[in-house]
Amino acid sequence: MRAEKKSKSNFQLKTPKGTRDYNEKEMAVRQDLFNTITKVFQRHGGVTIDTPVFEMRDILSGKYGEDSKLIYDLADQGGEDCSLRYDLTVPFARYLAMQGKKDAQQMKRYQIAKVYRRDQPIMTKGRLREFYQCDFDIAGAYDAMIPDAEILKILSDTMDAVNIPFHIKLNHRQILDGIFEVCGVPQQQIRSISAAVDKLDKLPWEDVKKEMVHEKGLSEDAADRIGAYVQLAKDTPSLLEHLQQDQMLMAHEGAVKGLADVKLLLEYLEIFNVRDRVKLDLSLARGLDYYTGIIYEAITDKSEGVGSIAAGGRYDNLVGMFSGTNKAGKPKTIPCVGVSIGVERVFSILMSRRNINDIKSNATQVYVISVGDGLLKERMELVQELWDAGINASFTLKNKPKLEKQWLACEKEQIPFAVIVGKDEIESGQVRIKDMRSKNSDQGGGVVLDRKDMISELKKKVADSSLYC
Amino acid sequence: MRAEKKSKSNFQLKTPKGTRDYNEKEMAVRQDLFNTITKVFQRHGGVTIDTPVFEMRDILSGKYGEDSKLIYDLADQGGEDCSLRYDLTVPFARYLAMQGKKDAQQMKRYQIAKVYRRDQPIMTKGRLREFYQCDFDIAGAYDAMIPDAEILKILSDTMDAVNIPFHIKLNHRQILDGIFEVCGVPQQQIRSISAAVDKLDKLPWEDVKKEMVHEKGLSEDAADRIGAYVQLAKDTPSLLEHLQQDQMLMAHEGAVKGLADVKLLLEYLEIFNVRDRVKLDLSLARGLDYYTGIIYEAITDKSEGVGSIAAGGRYDNLVGMFSGTNKAGKPKTIPCVGVSIGVERVFSILMSRRNINDIKSNATQVYVISVGDGLLKERMELVQELWDAGINASFTLKNKPKLEKQWLACEKEQIPFAVIVGKDEIESGQVRIKDMRSKNSDQGGGVVLDRKDMISELKKKVADSSLYC
Repeated sequence: MRAEKKSKSNFQLKTPKGTRDYNEKEMAVRQDLFNTITKVFQRHGGVTIDTPVFEMRDILSGKYGEDSKLIYDLADQGGEDCSLRYDLTVPFARYLAMQGKKDAQQMKRYQIAKVYRRDQPIMTKGRLREFYQCDFDIAGAYDAMIPDAEILKILSDTMDAVNIPFHIKLNHRQILDGIFEVCGVPQQQIRSISAAVDKLDKLPWEDVKKEMVHEKGLSEDAADRIGAYVQLAKDTPSLLEHLQQDQMLMAHEGAVKGLADVKLLLEYLEIFNVRDRVKLDLSLARGLDYYTGIIYEAITDKSEGVGSIAAGGRYDNLVGMFSGTNKAGKPKTIPCVGVSIGVERVFSILMSRRNINDIKSNATQVYVISVGDGLLKERMELVQELWDAGINASFTLKNKPKLEKQWLACEKEQIPFAVIVGKDEIESGQVRIKDMRSKNSDQGGGVVLDRKDMISELKKKVADSSLYC
Repeated sequence: MRAEKKSKSNFQLKTPKGTRDYNEKEMAVRQDLFNTITKVFQRHGGVTIDTPVFEMRDILSGKYGEDSKLIYDLADQGGEDCSLRYDLTVPFARYLAMQGKKDAQQMKRYQIAKVYRRDQPIMTKGRLREFYQCDFDIAGAYDAMIPDAEILKILSDTMDAVNIPFHIKLNHRQILDGIFEVCGVPQQQIRSISAAVDKLDKLPWEDVKKEMVHEKGLSEDAADRIGAYVQLAKDTPSLLEHLQQDQMLMAHEGAVKGLADVKLLLEYLEIFNVRDRVKLDLSLARGLDYYTGIIYEAITDKSEGVGSIAAGGRYDNLVGMFSGTNKAGKPKTIPCVGVSIGVERVFSILMSRRNINDIKSNATQVYVISVGDGLLKERMELVQELWDAGINASFTLKNKPKLEKQWLACEKEQIPFAVIVGKDEIESGQVRIKDMRSKNSDQGGGVVLDRKDMISELKKKVADSSLYC
């Protein structure tokens, strides 16, 4: 209890496996990105909530299929069993289930926050164990495909805001499940066969078929029939036409409903100017168990390297898994549809577009510099005056800093304006203001003006010049 | 592996002990608070970094004295031993130690992020196990008390920005340690006796003395001599004068250095207009082990209930605990001074000033409403046009919403403007715009204007009206 042990034999100076620090330049880009995305989310009426980083372990269990093994647990230190959140969707569903009030059952909520997965990290590819997710979800019982259309519009507006070209692969769980049933997949195997189909973006059909037949015990005939569907390479109108003429499939109630959903969605997306970016793709399956309606994935176009950049879908039953049943014995669920922006990939793309040296990480507008004898108190008085006027200002925190070092600091921190004082200026009640970005040599050491005009002059200059960030 | 178990016998629908959700109205206030504080931090040249939520366990051990037992550990799932961060200061010191480059050793960094403590939660008082810390630290070898003065200025500017009256209790670890030594406290007991003194804001002197003598085995004589110092009730100039005439204390090198620091700091604070808010208080000790120079605590004035609202100090040796020694065998440390704003208390105070119903949680500016036949596609076309123009707009996500429900949604979400269309407006190529906040009855159903003028008119209106949030 008394003196604590100071002896620290050996420790590793590092962050835990799969995690990393972000320095001030990376954070400037990241904050800018979060602000850009938040603006799009707010344009669509989004509000944000916050949930804890860890949840009761039982809340997370049975939601992630095969990936549940990647969940981080907290140690048993007495008390409840808790785990770090694996995504933001399950906590959001838990949150909704806990809101008793009727009017809390409609919500456009966004959340940008960290999640945790004990996956094998690939640091060079940006696959980390701690990473940000960035979700927009619309909860509430609305009319078919209207919220779904707005979600895809939000996805599209977000990608446009960060200037990343993309297209969207779209499918529908009820069409997919209809296909599986029509092809003869037993009911209890549907999710497992669906997980195999989901690998088609990485594996050739032969390998996926092998997994279905040899690992999962599906008949070769059923697998071939699935293959015929998921390998259909047609444009969206032709594919819709083709499916509608498929009498077997059109005898399946779910598939008919799914097809109607897709057609209605495409109509709405036409109005929202998103239609051209969407392609129906029967091979898209998505790994997560909880989807019940449309599912989709946005892929970057070639210029940014091909890869998934956003994804989501409709999950009408997840909230019901938490909120129990009503008097009639039916689950009190809240229908939801959402999108998750792959914000870490967007961040990587934005970083790769920048020269790290050009990134301004501070918001400082003015640097106060003394020529000659230190003049600490005079510099302090000047920054104090600037701060009080709401101007972002800094100075060298030394008694007698060398002039050269002050210039260097001003330049290194990319501060647009310098206020310079020396003995002369102080005696004449003046200051010198220099625009640091001007290479114009005839400006020389800046312009001299009366001390009392400093603030108004700087406010004008700062307003005129957008900070180069 | 195949079908996952769906049977979920029983689970508790709650967040873990000591944690809570924040709804959209609380988050609107919280985001606003974070923005306000960030602006102050940026005015002072701050940049931000990010570190992982969990650290290698050895990084945290031996830093928090008796409170180390409150650290959350991650479960052993194979691999490294990790723990959730307990504060932002130790991870920042670890971060600095990992930056090899010379120019990374000067930094004004702020961080607003969650930390974790397995303390006994008191939810009603806002003492939680997961909570935000909000820190500003200046790292780097500068001249005495210049960064310290700016840190106290930042504290002061932050409190002013959120309009919370406060005063600052100031002390210096070297003065305090000098007093302990002069009073006869054995070297190895100094931190432990210091921890007892730290309780003087909650306990009367008699109880603190009892702890020193009976629990910690200090002589009654030494305790009484300490009591004479820490109970000195004098204004700051008199107290400084008193200490300077204390020959015993003035023979202690550290105390003399500490006193010189305090005097210099007060001079600088005079320039920064903070001097009047600071009072030297020898009973302030601060619990954490790592402080080496000034320590301080800001207390709210009576109007907001008396309590600590910010605190910090100088810690010159913490980075050295991570960065090892140089060729001469001396620790390669980086001197630091910082402040931690009690942002959760500030948040509670701000919430208590607001009527929760008046808080606008969205940023929506325009609600599109149809009169009569649903007009879904027309409403969609209108929001699409608004979104494309960068206007935050919403509509009811239903085919044929009742007029009354649309008004209600617009009102409940405190959206300032409504765009209204009916059959008539569509036929005549017009829309109706209504200022929802105007109680002026002669405005009636709003003003009618040509559809092509809608965007420019709304942009003007939106710019004129600050969103009431």
